[in-house]
Formats: sequence, structure tokens, C-alpha cells
Amino acid sequence: MNRIKAVIYGVGAMNSIATRMLLDKDVDIVAAISRSKDKVGRDLGDLTGLGRQLGVTVTDDAKAALAASGADVAVIAVNSYMADAVEQLRICAEAGVNAVTLSEEALYPWNTSPEITAELDTIARRTGATLTGTGHQDTYWVNIVAMMMGTSHHIDHVTGHASWNVDDYGPEVASDQQVGRSVEEFEEWLRGAERPPTFGRNVLDALVADTGLTVKSIASTTRPDVAIGPMHSQALDLDVDAGQVIGFTDIDEIQTEEGPVLTFEMSGRVYGEADGDINEWEIQGEPDLVLSNGTVPTQITTCTQMVNRIPDVINAEPGFVTIEKLPRLKYRAFGLHTYLTEKGR
Amino acid sequence: MNRIKAVIYGVGAMNSIATRMLLDKDVDIVAAISRSKDKVGRDLGDLTGLGRQLGVTVTDDAKAALAASGADVAVIAVNSYMADAVEQLRICAEAGVNAVTLSEEALYPWNTSPEITAELDTIARRTGATLTGTGHQDTYWVNIVAMMMGTSHHIDHVTGHASWNVDDYGPEVASDQQVGRSVEEFEEWLRGAERPPTFGRNVLDALVADTGLTVKSIASTTRPDVAIGPMHSQALDLDVDAGQVIGFTDIDEIQTEEGPVLTFEMSGRVYGEADGDINEWEIQGEPDLVLSNGTVPTQITTCTQMVNRIPDVINAEPGFVTIEKLPRLKYRAFGLHTYLTEKGR
Repeated sequence: MNRIKAVIYGVGAMNSIATRMLLDKDVDIVAAISRSKDKVGRDLGDLTGLGRQLGVTVTDDAKAALAASGADVAVIAVNSYMADAVEQLRICAEAGVNAVTLSEEALYPWNTSPEITAELDTIARRTGATLTGTGHQDTYWVNIVAMMMGTSHHIDHVTGHASWNVDDYGPEVASDQQVGRSVEEFEEWLRGAERPPTFGRNVLDALVADTGLTVKSIASTTRPDVAIGPMHSQALDLDVDAGQVIGFTDIDEIQTEEGPVLTFEMSGRVYGEADGDINEWEIQGEPDLVLSNGTVPTQITTCTQMVNRIPDVINAEPGFVTIEKLPRLKYRAFGLHTYLTEKGR
Repeated sequence: MNRIKAVIYGVGAMNSIATRMLLDKDVDIVAAISRSKDKVGRDLGDLTGLGRQLGVTVTDDAKAALAASGADVAVIAVNSYMADAVEQLRICAEAGVNAVTLSEEALYPWNTSPEITAELDTIARRTGATLTGTGHQDTYWVNIVAMMMGTSHHIDHVTGHASWNVDDYGPEVASDQQVGRSVEEFEEWLRGAERPPTFGRNVLDALVADTGLTVKSIASTTRPDVAIGPMHSQALDLDVDAGQVIGFTDIDEIQTEEGPVLTFEMSGRVYGEADGDINEWEIQGEPDLVLSNGTVPTQITTCTQMVNRIPDVINAEPGFVTIEKLPRLKYRAFGLHTYLTEKGR
């Protein structure tokens, strides 16, 4: 059985972790693509902190790299929204190369970007490629929740809570997240803000699609998260007083015609010393159920899932295939190529 | 699309709950089987506390009932071990009727009862039936754990903790569980005890089968659970002093050739007021991961999973098919027959 050949598409923090994991799982890296001038021409091993060269020189010519690579899969970590991600996904689809991407909206983009998704689906079906959005949200926000819902007889309300640390993403993000503002300033900003759709919507869309329920209404609201004592934002190097804003929580909610309500609350805020990324879900119904994953190492689980999904994506039918339709994720104890089915080989 | 026809096989506490759930999900109950003299001849609706008759008279002639029923699936809640469960499963397989069973060993019986399982598999493949062991353990002890393992890059050790309340199962079970003994009496009993294999073994076998790892060694140990203050066993109507035994914990452990160790600790003991059934898992590796389901309503989740698994089992290829090979469990918002595939119809 031949080893899997992968193209690294985007050479940043996430794909640096993914590169190491791919090599550990016997995947051959055959090309690396970046638009960053200070990365093009350098060896992927040097750029990803592997401590050794890989003989893979980063290029900015994505089309040529994919065409020449003979790759089975592109591993994309470039951007978040389909309006931007379509560029990389279209190049992969046109080249007939399967792709996994961390673009958050790609988790379930059929409702938030229907035209782009349908276009990509059409190209991919024609060339035989499968395109899939994955990452931390694959298991922890969708599939583990859908599985727990499968242990319900009757569901009234599914509610999820997740969080991220604004200080992990630099001063611009912390400022966008309104850290250090007063609640009045926050409310004024919120009234005038033109904000992109939240990724909570894509999570709920995936869960609704999995259940076959019918959307009756969708609502998104936002509330400020307020410091209950003095805090410090590392990203802004700013002391925040009690009562000031340390970020905010987006609350997405879908009501279904059949009754069940699904709510997802996503908080991006300054963390205190005891805080970490959480993943907590509650189902009200028969029976009542809860799930908690304690403190989740989101960056690592983002990369593990993108890597471990690769055999499922190569094995899948062509098209834009969302993660709730893929098999239940498995631990990959052996080289990724050993998990390919007849279709995938 | 035709509704699913089910036979209730065993008319006790679990199948009373399952009967109600099946009716809620548009399943037609076409027969009911019990060996209990005080149930035979009575209406299933009366026996299961539905508050209405179902026009289904309980019989003790399983073969005749299955042959005449035209059933798609038998819903079995009779016993725990394959040596006993083979009777009902063989009758179903011979009749070409798919079956779901709560028999705990049936979760993954290939290693603990290989001959019986192979015999049933052969019959089922010949007649086109699928036989599957499910229940609480399906999702909470196997599939949700396997899914979380799928978010790992490298696993050193997987450890699970679950518990059950000995007072839920009457005085005989509480006595078997050594409630009220001294630790010395417990140790003496344990030295001489001929105990059946634990179901933790079947759970670990399913997880190992799912990962494709190779078993290097298997060990089972047992430690007493001791009261840390005065407690009361309802089943025995017995006050237990601090330092006395309130049950015990079976610890199953599989070491694999490839490195990962899997451990499952199952405690059956007298509960205090704040206690409930737990389901807690920890993965040590890259990354470290945890999962907790708080207090789990085990009896309900046992029945929901047996019911919600029915479409998967009818859709599956014939044979003895264990739950780690079935699709990820789904919430059944609609009648169970709407989830049948072309093959299943």
C-alpha cells in the first residue's frame, strides 16, 4: 500500500503542528504553499521548527505545486471564511486533490455560503476530489454532541458552551473583542458593529443537518463578558478593572419546527489564571444529559482532527462533504495510509 | 415506507421502558415473549405499565412467535452472559430476524465467548440477520471514548471510571457485592471466589478492536470499596459502619504491543446521597484529554440506545456485528423506519 502524499497549504502555527503529526503518521509531504514572501523559497522543516530540513521548498505558486505534486490531499490552514477559503479549495478541487481545511465556516457552509459551496461541490464531483472542513469543532462541537443526542429519546433543548482566550491571538483580536472597554462603550459599539456571521451558526447547522430537523428560526445575540476582579490582557498589555469588558459571548440559537431548540454560546475573553478552553454541553429532554471535556487543548485537537480525518476524506465520495457525514473519527495508531479503503487507495 | 415491526423478547423493567419508546418512534410491536408464568397470556401494555392494552399477548413459545411475526427486529432484554444469551440470539438468527440485545457480554463477545459468537455469526450470515449487543455501554463506554481517542495524536493510557448502585438490584446482588463485610472477610472471599468475567473486559476488547492494536496482556484485579462514614444499604436494609465494605471495584487492563494501555474501573457499591452513576474518561498522551458525563441516567440511556440503534442494525450487513463497527449513533427525531436505507427496507 502506498503512503499518502500531502501538500501543506499555508505555513503558520497550525500547519507547523500538523506537519510534525503527518510525518509521525508516515505521510510524505510533497509540496508546501505560502503567500508570505519571507517563507517562499525556504525549507518547510526550517519554517515549522522540526529541527531538520524536509527537502520541501515553500512556493507561492499553488496551482503549479498541486499539479506537479501527485498529492492525495491538501492540508489547508490559511483563513476562516468561505469567501476567502474558496480560493484554496477551488485550486485543490480543480486539480482533483482532496482537501481538509481548518477554515471554520467550511465546517458546514451550505447555509451561510450556499453558492460558493455548491460551486466547489460541483467542481469536486467532476474531478473526484473530496473537500472537508474540520478542526477542533469536528468532534467537540458537532460529532460528540450528535452522538450524545443519539442517546436521547426526546430532546427539548441542546445547549453548548465553549470559550477561547483572546490573548492567544495578538493585540488586534483583543481590541476587536472590546477588551478594556466600559459596558456602555461595548453596547454602543455593538449597535453599530458590522460583524461577520459567527461560527456557532455553522456548528448548529451541522447538528440540525445531522438530525434531519427543519429550521424554524435563527437568532444571534451578543453579551459582554465583564471582569469580576482586576485582570490583565497580555495581548494588549492592559490592566482591566472589575466591571470593564474582557471580551464577549456570541449566542446562536436555532428553533426547529419539530420542537428541539439548539443553542451554542461561544465566549472569547481574557482568561484568569484558572481559566482554560471549555467544552460543555447539556441536553434537556428524556433523559437530561451533560458532557464536559474539562480544559480542552484546542490548538492540538484542531491539528489532530485535521490529520486523523485524512483517511476518511480520501475514502469519501467526491464533493463538498461535511464532517457529520463522515465515519466516527478513529485513533490512528498506524500510518494514515493503512486506513484507506479500496476506494481510497 | 413500511413501519418497523418489533418483537419484545423478555418483559421486564428494561423492555417496559423500551416498549414505550418504540411506540413513540412509530414501531409496531407484533409479538412479546417471556418465560415467566405470571406474564404469559397477559397483554404487553398491561405488563409494561403503559396504561392501555396493545393487543399483544405475551407467549412463551419464542420460535413460533418469531416465525409468525414477520418481524424486522427482536428487542432482547433477558440475561447478561453469552452462555445464556445464545438461546434467544440463536432463535432470532435461525428465524432470520435481526436482534438488538442488552446482554452485556454481547457488546464485544469475540474474545470472551468465541465459539458461541462464531456460531451465531454463521447462522446470521446464512439467514441475513444482524445481531448486535448494545445498551448504555455502546456510546458511553465505547463509542464516545473511541471518538475522543480519535482526537489524539499519541496515546499512552486510556482510563475509564464507571459506577452502579448495588441497591438498585435487590438483596441478592448487594450480598454478592459483599456489602456489610469487613475488609478481611472481603479479602478471604475474593481469594476463593469463582467470579464470572467482568464486562469491563468486553468494553476494552471493543476499544482495542476499533483501534487495530494488538493485545499483549490482560489483567483483572478487584479492590473493596469501603465506607468512609456510616451508610445504609436499602437492598439489604443494613446499616454499614465506616471501614466496612460497601461493594467493590473491578479493574480491567489491557496492555498492547504498540504501547497504549487501556484501563476500565467499574464500581458496584452502595451510593451516598450525593452519588450517582458516573462516566469519566481520561486519555494521557498528546494531548491529555478528559471527558465526564456528570451523573448518567444509566437505565434510560440503556433503553434509548437499544431503540435508537435499531435502524443501524437493520441497515447493517448480516452477521454478529459489534457496535464499534456501526455508524455513529444519531438522534431519532422521526419514526425509526424513516432511517432505513435501501438495504434495510
